[in-house]
Amino acid sequence: MQQRIINPQDLAFQLFELHRTEDVLNYDRYADHSLETLQAALDLALKVAAEEFAPHARLVDEEEPTFESGRVTMRPEVKKALDVLRETGLMAAGQSYERGGMQLPAAVAQMCVGMLKGANVGTQGYAGLTIAAANLILAHGSEEQKQRYADHMLAGRFFGTMCLTEPHAGSSLGDLRTRAEPQDDGSYRLKGNKIYISAGDHELSENIIHMVLARLPDAPPGVKGISLFLVPKSLVNEDGSLGERNDVALAGLIHKMGYRGTTSTMLNFGEKDGAVGYLVGEPHKGLAAMFHMMNEARIGVGLGAVMLGYTGYLHALEYARERRQGRPMGEKDPATPQVPLIRHADIRRMLLTQKAYVEGGLALCLEGARLVDEKKFAASDTERAEAAGVLDLLTPLIKSWPSQFCLEANSLAIQVHGGYGYTREYPVEQFYRDNRLNPIHEGTHGIQGLDLLGRKVIMANGEYYNALMGRIRRTIKEAREVAELKDSAERLQVAIEQMAQATDAINKVRASGETERALANASLYLEAFGHTVVGWLWLRQAQVALQGIANSGPQTEEFYRGKLKACDYFARYELPRVASLAGLLAEVDGTALNIADAEF
Amino acid sequence: MQQRIINPQDLAFQLFELHRTEDVLNYDRYADHSLETLQAALDLALKVAAEEFAPHARLVDEEEPTFESGRVTMRPEVKKALDVLRETGLMAAGQSYERGGMQLPAAVAQMCVGMLKGANVGTQGYAGLTIAAANLILAHGSEEQKQRYADHMLAGRFFGTMCLTEPHAGSSLGDLRTRAEPQDDGSYRLKGNKIYISAGDHELSENIIHMVLARLPDAPPGVKGISLFLVPKSLVNEDGSLGERNDVALAGLIHKMGYRGTTSTMLNFGEKDGAVGYLVGEPHKGLAAMFHMMNEARIGVGLGAVMLGYTGYLHALEYARERRQGRPMGEKDPATPQVPLIRHADIRRMLLTQKAYVEGGLALCLEGARLVDEKKFAASDTERAEAAGVLDLLTPLIKSWPSQFCLEANSLAIQVHGGYGYTREYPVEQFYRDNRLNPIHEGTHGIQGLDLLGRKVIMANGEYYNALMGRIRRTIKEAREVAELKDSAERLQVAIEQMAQATDAINKVRASGETERALANASLYLEAFGHTVVGWLWLRQAQVALQGIANSGPQTEEFYRGKLKACDYFARYELPRVASLAGLLAEVDGTALNIADAEF
Repeated sequence: MQQRIINPQDLAFQLFELHRTEDVLNYDRYADHSLETLQAALDLALKVAAEEFAPHARLVDEEEPTFESGRVTMRPEVKKALDVLRETGLMAAGQSYERGGMQLPAAVAQMCVGMLKGANVGTQGYAGLTIAAANLILAHGSEEQKQRYADHMLAGRFFGTMCLTEPHAGSSLGDLRTRAEPQDDGSYRLKGNKIYISAGDHELSENIIHMVLARLPDAPPGVKGISLFLVPKSLVNEDGSLGERNDVALAGLIHKMGYRGTTSTMLNFGEKDGAVGYLVGEPHKGLAAMFHMMNEARIGVGLGAVMLGYTGYLHALEYARERRQGRPMGEKDPATPQVPLIRHADIRRMLLTQKAYVEGGLALCLEGARLVDEKKFAASDTERAEAAGVLDLLTPLIKSWPSQFCLEANSLAIQVHGGYGYTREYPVEQFYRDNRLNPIHEGTHGIQGLDLLGRKVIMANGEYYNALMGRIRRTIKEAREVAELKDSAERLQVAIEQMAQATDAINKVRASGETERALANASLYLEAFGHTVVGWLWLRQAQVALQGIANSGPQTEEFYRGKLKACDYFARYELPRVASLAGLLAEVDGTALNIADAEF
Repeated sequence: MQQRIINPQDLAFQLFELHRTEDVLNYDRYADHSLETLQAALDLALKVAAEEFAPHARLVDEEEPTFESGRVTMRPEVKKALDVLRETGLMAAGQSYERGGMQLPAAVAQMCVGMLKGANVGTQGYAGLTIAAANLILAHGSEEQKQRYADHMLAGRFFGTMCLTEPHAGSSLGDLRTRAEPQDDGSYRLKGNKIYISAGDHELSENIIHMVLARLPDAPPGVKGISLFLVPKSLVNEDGSLGERNDVALAGLIHKMGYRGTTSTMLNFGEKDGAVGYLVGEPHKGLAAMFHMMNEARIGVGLGAVMLGYTGYLHALEYARERRQGRPMGEKDPATPQVPLIRHADIRRMLLTQKAYVEGGLALCLEGARLVDEKKFAASDTERAEAAGVLDLLTPLIKSWPSQFCLEANSLAIQVHGGYGYTREYPVEQFYRDNRLNPIHEGTHGIQGLDLLGRKVIMANGEYYNALMGRIRRTIKEAREVAELKDSAERLQVAIEQMAQATDAINKVRASGETERALANASLYLEAFGHTVVGWLWLRQAQVALQGIANSGPQTEEFYRGKLKACDYFARYELPRVASLAGLLAEVDGTALNIADAEF
């Protein structure tokens, strides 16, 4: 199977050597699994990704869904791929057996979807959103809602959406206006307009289950008055058969720069009598319910960004090995043959940068996925609480760091291709366009920065921030004792001290009450913190790679040596970015606040 | 005239206060001009840009040119806009009166085209390439070639192209294979295939004049055996009327991520008997001729990148002032109205970053344009020689810095727009796609890095490098004495010392013969050097703004204060990037060389 979605050796390294996913198998929940069953699921997902999703990735970009006579039409390859996916059962990869799932560890379940993202993010969107919507019902819905809706979603019979944004309320969700009127039968009637509803309409599944944020009549204003509703496109009878069409109308499609295969829709709820909806969870607790699920959704966004960067890197690497252009430096004889691009220093630097970003980003996402399992299933309360706290802290980084740097990897993949990379005859430009969504959706980069610096760093009096720093310092301490790692460890030590100073300086300003200035550069803090954490994960990868070299034969040694080089690269080329940002952050500068509106 | 192409106050500031374009009027060549005539040309170009080019910019992106029955068809708005442009005479803005031109200073002539680029880079392409091709004939052609071809091109009757790339020869031009056979009548017959020929075919003008690089039969291999030929689409009779169709065939169109309005073609020369061509300049000196003109072309690329960034910034600024979203930090009452985006610190930071990049990039390009005039027309040999040398040194920076950072400005403009910015309903995503070409064409980022570090920094024993550093140091020395500028000057001083150390370290390694390692990070050197130079130009803008505040009333004071804030921003937020890069550069690191191919 020729595929350029992931390096399977790297995936196995990350899951089984770096993140020790087999330790997770000690949890009761995963008692039935073995490394073989995990690998089988991953192999299956990769096969579906490569054979069913990747081949039409360009097609759904060039021929995006259209809106005709009130219906969405799209290329038939999309349905075919999703039908195959449905058959595999992978949409319920992470769900419990009782819900018809495979009960796979979070890292493996995430990777199954992640490989689909790398193969064809547009077609994957329909499945990914369905999983997210079903998770929301499973976490907050009644048993009846789980059975009537979620189970059918995870089986792929119904698909799902998340309906948050309204034309005037994007990041500011507290301002949304969709209203839900209670009815005598316990249901609600919704009226309102939603935009950017991905997968909001299509004919890929029997039904579509919309998870809608709306206000009850007695709702307090703002974020404390938002409730979560389940609104099916067609009503669902008790026996699971479909009833009449609900009052949900497709108002139009939104056309995007990338991610074109996933329809982005405007939906009108309740144009006639009101759309029938059912409250999920408690009244006025809808936003909390939504955000409770957001950790996993945000890991999913970060992993999607990684996988787009990863496939771009593999394409660039292959191109650089094959395409001949120019001669070695100093070769004056034009009669000598041209050499492959990979022989040029600048191309190698760009490849190494991509490798460092995408493999580093993958390590970061899988760190998050392991914490998801630890949080739920670790043996002791203490372990679970620390896992939950560290995951909360890492979540904005997991969402944002790959969205920024794996997008940059896509730009470098274009650059390696030269003029060809800018054409639609090669796939790398599409990855770049697709990936540009990731710093925006599920909370923008700026929102993630505020979440990290404004809430996560100081939550529980900084307990989890300190816990994470402690983990990083322990790795540094170990690595310093190893000749091959000493230099990288020292560089990470410098970075972490700089981050600690910046954090202290910001906390002092915050404590003085100047919150706005303290948080003015939260986005830059996010970037610097992200680089520090990924630097740590590179050092850990290098530690594990050294063990690998000691344990293995020459056949895998090249792979492990590549990890050591990439760690070295990250420490030398990337960690200095922390210094330049942390220096600025420590000044707790308010330049952007001080310029008057009229001075722009 | 509502336009979001440029801030006219900034343009006047840069041309007349910062770069003192009126001093250029002292050169004999510009004796007829006054500030009023310059302003009139700029006003005319802006009017044409805003009224004729901007309105169909999205249209030519959505409905790009198509190839049907051997012909290129495109939206009629393109021809209409170019017809209006032709009427204005602006295509010859910079040319001498004897060639029918306006004989305007280089900075003004560049800006006239630049504003078209900001308005609609796709439609502008046809005019921009024509000017470049005509310049090539004027610089190297015979008087007969000038009259028969170039004059008609500058009048807009014929359009032009540059035919360099072949399928196997992009950056490695020495490997091109198109052949030219001499004929008894002094003409040549060309055979070969060219790709990425922008504006290679269309029906916008009476004729198309291709400037083609090819090899003579006796050509030595490599770059020393390339000659330049003029190959008309239709032959041109002595009286200027068109003769028979030449043997140049459109083989197909290439589809790009952006810049879609400008056709990118594959052209076959001499499928039948050979395409009739005429040698321009001397045999085997074609590449030198092409590169002789490259300085101005590369300023044009840099300026195009700036203008795309600039229009994105103005769109983002307007959106941020109008769109209401969220509340001030600490405002807990959801009943209070939402505030404009510009009230949020992170939005302000992103706007300020864009301002610093696009106005700084414009200052850089106009510095280059002023040196173009100085090089040609300054009074003394010494002045002209120094201007030529400093321009040579700056050219890779002028080409690359805006291509990198004004593209980043476009990304930030998307981010300010949030989800809307990712849709094709708003223009900012198109600017981002259009601008992504600029780090690739006219010499990739990597090629510019090698040009800067491998050739320009050390040419004439570093004389021009030292001259530029001397200029920067003089500005720092002056600015240090001014309270408002002292901090920025000190930060620039740090940056320049770091760059000097990095340069010395690299030169030592180079002198030791390790050229490949010395140049391995040339792209990063380019970035660090670019930031240093733009930091200098921001300090100079701040100096001039302080004078402006002293001389002017409160009405313009806001504008000048904005310049001071942006200088402050650049020094605090951007110059630290020099530190992190220069530290790495001073190590003359060879990590990317040391990783084995199989270790990727």
